[in-house]
Amino acid sequence: MNYKLVFSTVLKVVKLESALMLLPLLTSLIFKESCFYDFLITMAVSFTLAHVIEKFIKPTSKYFYSKDGFITVALTWIIVSLIGAVPFVISGEIPSFIDAFFEMVSGFTTTGATILSDVENISKGLLMWRSFSHFIGGMGVLVFIMAITSKTTDRPIHILRAEMPGPMVSKLVPKSKDTAKILYLMYIVLTAVLVVMLLFGKMPLYDSLVHAFGTAGTGGFGIKNSSIGGYNDYIQWVIAIFMLLYGVNFNLYYFLIIKRTFSVLKSSELRTYIIIIATAVIAIFINIYPLYQNVYETIKISFFQVSSIITTTGYGTVDINSWPALSKTILLSLMFIGGCSGSTAGGIKISRFLLAFKKIKAELKKLLHPNTVSVIKLEGEKVDDDVISGLSAYFTLYFISFIALTLIVATNGLPFETTFSAVCSCFNNIGPIFGEGVQNFSCFNGFSKIILSITMLLGRLEIYPLLLAFIPSTWAKSKI
Amino acid sequence: MNYKLVFSTVLKVVKLESALMLLPLLTSLIFKESCFYDFLITMAVSFTLAHVIEKFIKPTSKYFYSKDGFITVALTWIIVSLIGAVPFVISGEIPSFIDAFFEMVSGFTTTGATILSDVENISKGLLMWRSFSHFIGGMGVLVFIMAITSKTTDRPIHILRAEMPGPMVSKLVPKSKDTAKILYLMYIVLTAVLVVMLLFGKMPLYDSLVHAFGTAGTGGFGIKNSSIGGYNDYIQWVIAIFMLLYGVNFNLYYFLIIKRTFSVLKSSELRTYIIIIATAVIAIFINIYPLYQNVYETIKISFFQVSSIITTTGYGTVDINSWPALSKTILLSLMFIGGCSGSTAGGIKISRFLLAFKKIKAELKKLLHPNTVSVIKLEGEKVDDDVISGLSAYFTLYFISFIALTLIVATNGLPFETTFSAVCSCFNNIGPIFGEGVQNFSCFNGFSKIILSITMLLGRLEIYPLLLAFIPSTWAKSKI
Repeated sequence: MNYKLVFSTVLKVVKLESALMLLPLLTSLIFKESCFYDFLITMAVSFTLAHVIEKFIKPTSKYFYSKDGFITVALTWIIVSLIGAVPFVISGEIPSFIDAFFEMVSGFTTTGATILSDVENISKGLLMWRSFSHFIGGMGVLVFIMAITSKTTDRPIHILRAEMPGPMVSKLVPKSKDTAKILYLMYIVLTAVLVVMLLFGKMPLYDSLVHAFGTAGTGGFGIKNSSIGGYNDYIQWVIAIFMLLYGVNFNLYYFLIIKRTFSVLKSSELRTYIIIIATAVIAIFINIYPLYQNVYETIKISFFQVSSIITTTGYGTVDINSWPALSKTILLSLMFIGGCSGSTAGGIKISRFLLAFKKIKAELKKLLHPNTVSVIKLEGEKVDDDVISGLSAYFTLYFISFIALTLIVATNGLPFETTFSAVCSCFNNIGPIFGEGVQNFSCFNGFSKIILSITMLLGRLEIYPLLLAFIPSTWAKSKI
Repeated sequence: MNYKLVFSTVLKVVKLESALMLLPLLTSLIFKESCFYDFLITMAVSFTLAHVIEKFIKPTSKYFYSKDGFITVALTWIIVSLIGAVPFVISGEIPSFIDAFFEMVSGFTTTGATILSDVENISKGLLMWRSFSHFIGGMGVLVFIMAITSKTTDRPIHILRAEMPGPMVSKLVPKSKDTAKILYLMYIVLTAVLVVMLLFGKMPLYDSLVHAFGTAGTGGFGIKNSSIGGYNDYIQWVIAIFMLLYGVNFNLYYFLIIKRTFSVLKSSELRTYIIIIATAVIAIFINIYPLYQNVYETIKISFFQVSSIITTTGYGTVDINSWPALSKTILLSLMFIGGCSGSTAGGIKISRFLLAFKKIKAELKKLLHPNTVSVIKLEGEKVDDDVISGLSAYFTLYFISFIALTLIVATNGLPFETTFSAVCSCFNNIGPIFGEGVQNFSCFNGFSKIILSITMLLGRLEIYPLLLAFIPSTWAKSKI
């Protein structure tokens, strides 16, 4: 393994993170909060340390092997969360380091799960940082590095593959670096539009930024105990629509820009996404209408909730604990489905299900006519056998990991519903937790919080990179 | 499709079923119950009808294509349940035909789910028939036909494959027919030994037969509202051990008989089965010890429950609703894992998980060293790529079916826990249902009962045969 290259990349990320802390630093300066100094210390120390260590590590080769890419991604995500947690701890607002680490992993992985019972009591600077981490994690930390640094490694495709969700990664332009740039640019522009639209709805600038970041990363961190419930209808509609927009494969926006509208219209993933959303909204509308007795209100609530859950954002406007079982089951299914690949949403991703259906169809055909050879296509292109076989392994791995993680968290001794919903929420990067009398993740012990942090990372990085980092043979020296 | 051959096979099964009703008929005669006449009428009418119709259907070819096999299996299982339900309905003891059908599907699929609130009120003849259906369904209805009829079709392997659980089917001897004979012989001998051992424990003959059938098929139907809880310790241990024995691949018993003991000892599925059982018993013992405060009692209870759940039998000795979350989660995981392939147990099967782990390991290796080619082996033999790719499709199909079935049953409007546990119980052929105030499946409406019956059949036949029967193109005439 190319240790030097891996560590020098991680150090670059640390420096980038200290630079990004400028935003919460400024926020706390404006609101005259004492956490200004906590950010200043964290930034100064981490930047200096990274800079000094960097001097001693000079990568001799810039060649990234597959496993170097995975290890870099795994290390990066753990270290940004560790450093990101520091201001919370030294400010004393989240005194336990494990709690602060959980909160930051939840931020970067765009989960939105929290251990805070009263979020309105936390400094504005810290809340800004928490939401900003959704924005940073949404499109990928290393993809950002790739987009902004001039020198890049020779095989950045591994990074793109590890950080971008979905069964396949397709580059928009021949160079990975340029793809990363285009993706980030579109991401920033879309978020800027969202901020303007929120300001237009009379939301204060600070609130607009925090919620725009939370929506962009499909994370779900807010600043009110009532989430989005306290804002006006216009804002609720804007956020509901933008959550869905961030759940779309960003490649499609690029096609729109370069006027390949036809590619957008015939995208089967997009069409399936829209059909699932429409079906879910209609079914939930019919199911919960008796509760609200008002057509407009019921449509608004159903649409917001479906949008929030399928994109795995986790914002809420009403209490869904009182909803009938059918609506709850629909929402639970949406959690697992998730958004489109190449979006900021979590879950298993729609394209994986599309491919799985095609594979099942091919299997059925084969059972009926044993000599048939089926070719599986997605978006008009033949899908490699490797992708199909990897996809099935992913489903199995997902299933087994889910059971294993639930078993480990169950040792905490909390009721089954709480345990199950916590793992489901963290693994799919959604955020809320269900169960009687349970408001947030503070009910878990330290060990469970660490396991749930790992669960969120496994979910965001789609299992493999983190799993590989835990396998000793990955770290062994080998020529390949 | 070879319609004539399919229907003539199904008619043979109907005749066999009427013959098998002799056992409950005799039972009701001995106990002087009025359901004697109900069995007599059902037997006479179904046998005569099948015999008459058979005269008109003379299959011209004996060649079974793959899809003929699947359709035969699907039709057979539906029809035996329909006919089996008749005595319950005409006796008036289960007046609703849907309820009686549910009960018989539950019997043949060895699920053990019931709609009866007071099983002690039902005639002994009917209860005998209910348990006997576990025994018949356990090893497969068509496998039985294959074992006893002299003339067989040319490709009976399709039947064996469709009715025997597991990712692969291996014939013990060159001919499928002889394999079926050996399997049934071992099955009957093992059950006879069980009956003798239960009699030895002072269990009445009638109770011994009913429970032996319930154990053999890993079904779970009993004759007491307290399941096995009211019997003495010796009987509880015997049933616990025999449930585990029926959860082992029957091929291994054949190897023992022909003195290939080495093959048994090195069976990785058997070893994994034992390791999982031991781990689960120890973990549950530690977890529930505070509840029972008695080492022997706690071991007995833990062992019985693990044995009952991993083999998907569903017998109970204590109320597990009061158990802590960890133990419940362990049991829930065991439900999905299930027994060994080629056993009478349900669930996903251990060999599928073993193969999945090997496939995941190969995928991880490939990510690290993209040019490696891995060969997956099970029990010392190379596993075909087709089996691996079919296996992954199975996991995906299982996962998607589970979500879809839960959604459909959720339209019934019952609480989520009830809906989820019902689908989980039926799909894995376990039997009990959980949830506050819910004792059995009578809380569901007719539509849900039909869906849950389909769920049990999907679980027992491992999805494909039944799914194919619902696809129109299967029924289309084609040369292949």
